[in-house]
Amino acid sequence: MNRPQAIERMMQIIKHFPGVGPKMAERISYHILRMPVEQSDALVDAIMQARSTMKYCSICFNLSESDPCPICADSDRDRKTICVVETPQDLIAVSKVKDYKGLYFVLGGALSPLDAIGPQDLRIDSLLKRIKDEAITEVILATDTDAKGETTALYLAQLIKEMHVKATRLGYGLPVGGDIEYADEITISRAIAGRKEM
Amino acid sequence: MNRPQAIERMMQIIKHFPGVGPKMAERISYHILRMPVEQSDALVDAIMQARSTMKYCSICFNLSESDPCPICADSDRDRKTICVVETPQDLIAVSKVKDYKGLYFVLGGALSPLDAIGPQDLRIDSLLKRIKDEAITEVILATDTDAKGETTALYLAQLIKEMHVKATRLGYGLPVGGDIEYADEITISRAIAGRKEM
Repeated sequence: MNRPQAIERMMQIIKHFPGVGPKMAERISYHILRMPVEQSDALVDAIMQARSTMKYCSICFNLSESDPCPICADSDRDRKTICVVETPQDLIAVSKVKDYKGLYFVLGGALSPLDAIGPQDLRIDSLLKRIKDEAITEVILATDTDAKGETTALYLAQLIKEMHVKATRLGYGLPVGGDIEYADEITISRAIAGRKEM
Repeated sequence: MNRPQAIERMMQIIKHFPGVGPKMAERISYHILRMPVEQSDALVDAIMQARSTMKYCSICFNLSESDPCPICADSDRDRKTICVVETPQDLIAVSKVKDYKGLYFVLGGALSPLDAIGPQDLRIDSLLKRIKDEAITEVILATDTDAKGETTALYLAQLIKEMHVKATRLGYGLPVGGDIEYADEITISRAIAGRKEM
């Protein structure tokens, strides 16, 4: 017997989820079929709600239910400092650190020549324009500490320094080769305190 | 910033998927948000379609778009032999072996005292009733070859032999401690050829 078509269709999409392969996609598909109906309805509803309500903040490109996002709309924050992160998940990790009061900017990834991701594929122009238009005084580069993140930070630091703006990199505390998203709050907090000019 | 509520809702359901934890649920949720809209629509549609069209076959408890399922409805098959499997996924794996022409029965799991799964939690009564009503002559026990599957096979073999019906277990070829779902077709084919009475 071949797999029923309805299950096959689910599997074809689910197997492209990050960290999921064909066999796991099959297990997840059967799991969805066996869930109580309220739960599968809740899943469908959550996906549709997220897809319809979540949008990119036009200032920092964070994913948010409002535009501008709550952080950009918060007038109590230091509006002269921007922390640049790769993804919205990274932004959430950094924003758990209560002692950072500046704003953010989500690049949308990191430079990666092997994956054919160059400067034009990231929001670098928007970032530079924002630094200029809003007279930003310091840009904290909080890209991941792997090779792609480091390259991206070096590349951005160069451009930012040419604008006579201070570019800093998250300091000690971050394990090299890691992913900022997985760092704990204390590590990120130390890294912000120990940031140094590039 | 806390995670937006719409993403949180997706994560709460996805983190219970088999093999998925909270961090992976977050990645999958953001992946779903970033998918092209046609694809997220297709996912929602596939889930809804699967949930509305898939049902349990009332004879073998396979998941199918029709009741009885295509296998039980196929009059060319040997109707006196039943192959008992734990899950619909296992049934699909066994059914790829073209030389098995009998019918199936999906137990719905395996005995597992540690998880408080006893005989009353599986479809054992339905199986015994079907063996009697349809005058089955042989039951092939194709539960997994791990401890739970072996225990279940031994338990069922005892009950089936008391009914003076032949109970066989899939033979050599299956690696011990494995999951039938992951076995390749040749291994399953050999195991069927080498089945032995219990």
